[in-house]
Amino acid sequence: MVIKTAALVANDNNNNNNDMVVTPWEVKGKVDYDKLIKEFGTQPLTSELLNRVGAHTGKLHLQLERKIFFSHRDLDTVLDLYDKGTKFVLYTGRGPSGPVHIGHLVPWMFTLHLQQKFKTRLYFQITDDEKYLVNDERDLGETSKWSYENALDLIALGFKPEDTFIIYNTKDIDLLYDISLKVAKRITYSTARSSFGFQDSTNIGWVYWPALQAAPCFIHKKLTGENVPALIPAAIDQDPYWRVTRDVAQKLGYCKPAQIHCRFLPGLGTNGKMSASMPETSIFTIDQPDDVKKKIWGAFTGGKPTAAEQRKTGANPAICSIFQYYHYLFEEDLSKLKEREHKCITGEMLCGECKKDIAEKLNKFLEAHRERREKAKDTIEQYHIKR
Amino acid sequence: MVIKTAALVANDNNNNNNDMVVTPWEVKGKVDYDKLIKEFGTQPLTSELLNRVGAHTGKLHLQLERKIFFSHRDLDTVLDLYDKGTKFVLYTGRGPSGPVHIGHLVPWMFTLHLQQKFKTRLYFQITDDEKYLVNDERDLGETSKWSYENALDLIALGFKPEDTFIIYNTKDIDLLYDISLKVAKRITYSTARSSFGFQDSTNIGWVYWPALQAAPCFIHKKLTGENVPALIPAAIDQDPYWRVTRDVAQKLGYCKPAQIHCRFLPGLGTNGKMSASMPETSIFTIDQPDDVKKKIWGAFTGGKPTAAEQRKTGANPAICSIFQYYHYLFEEDLSKLKEREHKCITGEMLCGECKKDIAEKLNKFLEAHRERREKAKDTIEQYHIKR
Repeated sequence: MVIKTAALVANDNNNNNNDMVVTPWEVKGKVDYDKLIKEFGTQPLTSELLNRVGAHTGKLHLQLERKIFFSHRDLDTVLDLYDKGTKFVLYTGRGPSGPVHIGHLVPWMFTLHLQQKFKTRLYFQITDDEKYLVNDERDLGETSKWSYENALDLIALGFKPEDTFIIYNTKDIDLLYDISLKVAKRITYSTARSSFGFQDSTNIGWVYWPALQAAPCFIHKKLTGENVPALIPAAIDQDPYWRVTRDVAQKLGYCKPAQIHCRFLPGLGTNGKMSASMPETSIFTIDQPDDVKKKIWGAFTGGKPTAAEQRKTGANPAICSIFQYYHYLFEEDLSKLKEREHKCITGEMLCGECKKDIAEKLNKFLEAHRERREKAKDTIEQYHIKR
Repeated sequence: MVIKTAALVANDNNNNNNDMVVTPWEVKGKVDYDKLIKEFGTQPLTSELLNRVGAHTGKLHLQLERKIFFSHRDLDTVLDLYDKGTKFVLYTGRGPSGPVHIGHLVPWMFTLHLQQKFKTRLYFQITDDEKYLVNDERDLGETSKWSYENALDLIALGFKPEDTFIIYNTKDIDLLYDISLKVAKRITYSTARSSFGFQDSTNIGWVYWPALQAAPCFIHKKLTGENVPALIPAAIDQDPYWRVTRDVAQKLGYCKPAQIHCRFLPGLGTNGKMSASMPETSIFTIDQPDDVKKKIWGAFTGGKPTAAEQRKTGANPAICSIFQYYHYLFEEDLSKLKEREHKCITGEMLCGECKKDIAEKLNKFLEAHRERREKAKDTIEQYHIKR
């Protein structure tokens, strides 16, 4: 199997559908995370490092325990500094191209956990400019609308305005532009092309854009004078941005940003990450109960063609998109998760029951989320950086 | 003689010093303006067109009469619209890399004339970001300082705040960014490379930057709702920017910007435009009387080795940098200019006298300019676009 990173995809017109593709704009194929660690040159999250995190957080977060976050760069350095009294800031973000789905919420929930346990600030970048630039059909009005809608989903998770600063790129460009210029001046076109796979037909906005994704890594110093590292919890497809940012950070007098990388929550289809471009395979926070039931009902599982056969030979949770929902989010109790897995493998529990359970859990979660999301409309302005 | 435009220079490592080079970042060699019109595909300013301008301005401005402005794109279209009641806006600017010299003031004075005669608005862009991006050594603090200093020189010429809007790129990026994104999305890297001669080693900030120089062409619609063309009086080296801007304007629902192109005021050396990078060949507005005298005294003229020889055979004003000062700016009376030319050619007036005259005129002009420049410090904020 070939791992296709940005530069490879760009130069390959014979893309085999079975290949794994992981770029900031496309994730497809079956993702082999161990290979990604090697290919991207990141570090696995070792037990030793997890223990160091646990020393600060108490019980390890589900997403660390289950290796949903599985890789990092410089998390050890960030912890060293923290132990000596230098805090870090958190930085993550969202490309507002449509509604938020459960797969987006997973790393944000983990980010909230880190924020609460380490008592630190979060910068959250909403990249309406990027989503405008990379899609021929999209206009800026559309991406601005989704910026607002997506911010509500973030706030609904429980982030507090004292420590959470949402950056809307086009609205807040006055805060980002000078930093992005400093970054851009130190990235040649040739470096950008090899990191992101740019081609002659790429528009010049897209070419510049990595400098804007880099800017929030360094904004804390501008706002507060404190030169502390940013720790970025995000899916590993964003890694090329941090590679180029890390290369220029110290030349500009900033700390290198550190990363902690997560897996993609699989879609309800057979492969790849949950994707807003295949709405039938994703559960969106705005999906109504009946939509959720319908999508779950149509989801790919590891079940057998007939109930009789499944009762006899059992099913395969390892390939089941429904089981992943329990694993990633909806069964916090590991012994109960194991029990469900066992019942699946032995044929004791059929897919129908498992789907009914998850649809109920999902709808309960989404109902409460939407209530908090409505309330977020009253407070959203408090998360906007004051001038 | 070869004309080297941006793309040619970029791809040519054997640059012959005698070649004419005209790019937005470099002008050198003896400039052949007729060839530039052909090479750039612009239109000459015909007598018919000048008459149309004169119908609005009364007596033709010195810089039109003497063909200092010599070429255009769509000036006829702009006049057609004006005659039917649709105004245009003026747009020009300055790269703040150092102090302003007389060569910079020449097109600004003409711009003021157009503004007064056509009663129209001027947008003046100060491109501190560009000057930062294109020079390895320069920092943003330096270009911001020159932004302020250079704006004072503009205001000192007599522009009124009601109709003059100075745009400082890094300070006013909130007004420019969305427009620049729309432009950038429609310019491929390949187009930018061939228009500006970008190379693999070019930084990605520079690659994006043409979209920012384009933005003020369209800002009037954003600020007022009126969709009118911009007319850009500027030296012809800036033409590549307007070519790419014109290509995307209508796709974005804007009028194509029109241009009127001027020559470069020659430096006091033998060739090329007056350049801040060769301070001994330029008269800066901050130069003190003795500096002016010294620079003028050392200037290249068309004179002969000895006074005796010159009295006998005369001198050559066509190659004289001092005579150019009279021609461009300091002798408005054409008959007096002809008289001075005649006295030079016949040997009746020697270089010393001519130099003494121009030094006096320059110092008188600069003294008054600096007085107005001081006063501009009190009003400079009025020229900044209100939010």
